[in-house]
Parts: sequence; structure tokens; C-alpha cells
Amino acid sequence: MQIQVYGSAAQLPGAADLKDRVAVVIDVLRATSTIASALQAGARRVQPVLTPEEARAVAAELGGRAVLGGERGGLKIPGFDLGNSPLEYTPRAVSGRDVIITTTNGTRALHGAASAAVVCTAGFVNLTAVADFVHAGGRDVAVCCAGTHDQFSLDDGLCAGGLVAALVARSGAEPCDLGLALAEVFRGGRQRIRQLLAACLHGRRLLNLGFAADLDLCAQLDAVPVVPVLVDGALVRSAGR
Amino acid sequence: MQIQVYGSAAQLPGAADLKDRVAVVIDVLRATSTIASALQAGARRVQPVLTPEEARAVAAELGGRAVLGGERGGLKIPGFDLGNSPLEYTPRAVSGRDVIITTTNGTRALHGAASAAVVCTAGFVNLTAVADFVHAGGRDVAVCCAGTHDQFSLDDGLCAGGLVAALVARSGAEPCDLGLALAEVFRGGRQRIRQLLAACLHGRRLLNLGFAADLDLCAQLDAVPVVPVLVDGALVRSAGR
Repeated sequence: MQIQVYGSAAQLPGAADLKDRVAVVIDVLRATSTIASALQAGARRVQPVLTPEEARAVAAELGGRAVLGGERGGLKIPGFDLGNSPLEYTPRAVSGRDVIITTTNGTRALHGAASAAVVCTAGFVNLTAVADFVHAGGRDVAVCCAGTHDQFSLDDGLCAGGLVAALVARSGAEPCDLGLALAEVFRGGRQRIRQLLAACLHGRRLLNLGFAADLDLCAQLDAVPVVPVLVDGALVRSAGR
Repeated sequence: MQIQVYGSAAQLPGAADLKDRVAVVIDVLRATSTIASALQAGARRVQPVLTPEEARAVAAELGGRAVLGGERGGLKIPGFDLGNSPLEYTPRAVSGRDVIITTTNGTRALHGAASAAVVCTAGFVNLTAVADFVHAGGRDVAVCCAGTHDQFSLDDGLCAGGLVAALVARSGAEPCDLGLALAEVFRGGRQRIRQLLAACLHGRRLLNLGFAADLDLCAQLDAVPVVPVLVDGALVRSAGR
């Protein structure tokens, strides 16, 4: 099993390179932590779209039954039901409903990875569940860090390193050099995830916006052990997860 | 002092972004380790060029007094005097002479970084000397990892992390997220540099080609404490270094 890690959405390879692999999209702060939380809370499906306009159009097609979620600049989009905080995605808010979500980096990475044979999403909150799922599938792996505005982001890289370390431990997988480096970061930092999230650029921005509780949740290893997989353009809970 | 780390030659920014910064080009295996060794051994200057043809043309202009060095596929180029092993660049081979060098990744990175206000080169062999030089200059820093065939390479990334860690320790510099991550790798791995070089893709290739002694040298922190700086298209030893 070969593992290739891509440092940001801008660095993802083309569709032909992805088509036989499983893509794991990571946007720890906060899209993929939020997607796991929404499915855990009982959302039927979470559909990532690129723009607020597209989100409204898709919601209108669904006859107003969908929940609109997402952010721009870290903040809830005017007129939307929810922002991008995983804490907002409670059973009361989303159980049994479709969620349409648009975020600055995470939904771009999901669209960039969509041509992979299998697409799932990971954060610290579901790291072990995703590692088990990917290991069981046996495909080569494309770890797609969303990054922040096309730059490598430590929050996503640290989580990618955790996934690489978990896959190497399970199967003797062969990571690329970036995967090797990030696995080293994770092994050294796994007891300091919350601290490292607070040190990185994106984490500092979220703290300035008042989202400290989001960092607390997004740093919790295996707190939300579901595996979101992309089916017909939306993330649903993998069978058994 | 802001520090931005670029993961490969393909990711370097344009000239306008570099013009006020010091660029530190890193190609641990082996170009920047070799350049330091050549200057330490008394080479007058080391001129990086992109192709073997250009190297021959420049040498011809110099009337045959230059030493031709470099590699393709890790091996000495036919007709050249030296390959890309730092061990070949002895005083007997290069003292008092001009060296024209062309390598697969390192010289590309040097050309990509050439528009910076100041350009120097680093490896583990001169890490502390370069950190002192960059710190004394006080400019924002662009750490330009050569990478391997446009991909991030752990050898260069680990050294970039060492430079970031050294600059943060000296000055409270502010690294980008990739710099933060790689400084973590270096702090955890500084006692295992040789082992990590042997684990990365490029290191494994060099071991297969029989260059274990090169890895030994390239892994030695501060063994060759010179600072190569780019002046009129060639690397020369910085005054006092």
C-alpha cells in the first residue's frame, strides 16, 4: 500500500492519478470534524458545495427541508442555519435531515478529490475509524490535506501524519517523504494536539474569533468514530460506522 | 522575522515575492552539502548551471581551467571531472579553481531562488553557520527546499526544520505552518539524522547506488561550517565564513 500525502487543495493530482485510490480528505479546522459530527448526530447526508449561492440553490431544489451550513472568513454565512462549528451540529439541528455545507478550504479539497475510487473524510475525531476503513479497503491512499488558502496547514498535516502512522502500524504501508515527515510530527506531538492546533496559523485565527471550544473538540482523538464516505456527491455514514 | 518554507523547487514563489528576502536553498543529498565542501576545500567559486551542455559551454569560456562537476541519475556525467559526491571535492581537486556544477534538483532550486535579495545554501554540514548568517542579516526568510523531481523530500525538509528551529531559538522568528511542522520533525529527529536520510526516497536511491559514505557526511551537523552566498551567478564563501 502506497501512501501519498498532498499538502494543500492546490497540490492535488488530476483525476487520472486518483481514480484507483482511496482519497482521505482532511480539514481538521473544521470542515471534516464538522462533517463527522453532523453524521454522528444523525444527519442523513452532508453535501459539500463550493459556494453559498450553490448551497442555496441545492437547498431550494430539496424543497426547503435541508439545513444550510458553512462559513466564510470563519463565520456563519448570512441567512444560513448553521456555521462551521462541529458543536452546532446537534441531533436537534440535523437529525434525519440533509445538510448542505460550504467552507473555504474543505469543500474545495473534497471537490478536488472527488474522482478517486473511494473518498472519505478524516479529522482527529475519527482518525482510528478512518484508518481501519482505509486499511480494510487495501487500496493505495491519497491523503488530501485541505490546507489554508492553498498553503500547507499544520492542523491538517498533523492529522495526515497520524493517519500515516496508523496505516504503517497496521500494514507496513509505504509513505511518501511528506508522509514520513508528518508521521514523525504526529509521533512526537500526539500528546500535544490541542497545543499544536493553537500554534498554527488557522488555529490562531479561530481562537481570535472566539472558537476555543471548537479547537477543544477538533483535537479529541476518536471522539466521533464515524467514517464519512462520498456517495452520489454527498457524505454518508459508512455501513457499520 | 517571517520564515516561509517551500517544499520543492516547483513551489517556489515568483521574483517579486523573493526580492526583499534572504533565500536559503537546501539540497542535502547532495548539491548543497557538496557546494559547502567545495568552498571549504578552497574552490574559488561554484557556479550552478541547469544543463550539462551549459556547464561545458561555461567551462570552455573559462579556457579549460574550470572543474566540471555534477550528476544525472545520481551518477557522474560522462566527460565531467567530478560527480556530485562531497567527498570528491578535495583541495587537490578544486583548490583555487572555478567549479561549474549541474545537478538534477539543487541547481534548479538555486535558479528559482536567484531573484532573492540574498541567496545562500545550507545542508546539515553548515546549518549553524547559515543560521547565524541569516539571523545577523535580519531579513525575512524563504527556505527553498530543492525536493526530488518537484516533490517534497524528507532530507531537505528535515534540514529546513533544523534551520527554522535554530532561527526561532535565536530571534523568536515566526515560521509558516510547514516550518512549524518541520521544526517539530527536526527536534524529534536530530539524534537520528543519518537514519532518517536512509529512510527517505532519495536516500534509499543513493544507498542503492553505493553512496553510503555520502550519507554519512551529509548527515554530520556543522562538519563544514562555511556559508556559500550567491554573487554574480556563483557561490562564494561569505566573508568571515
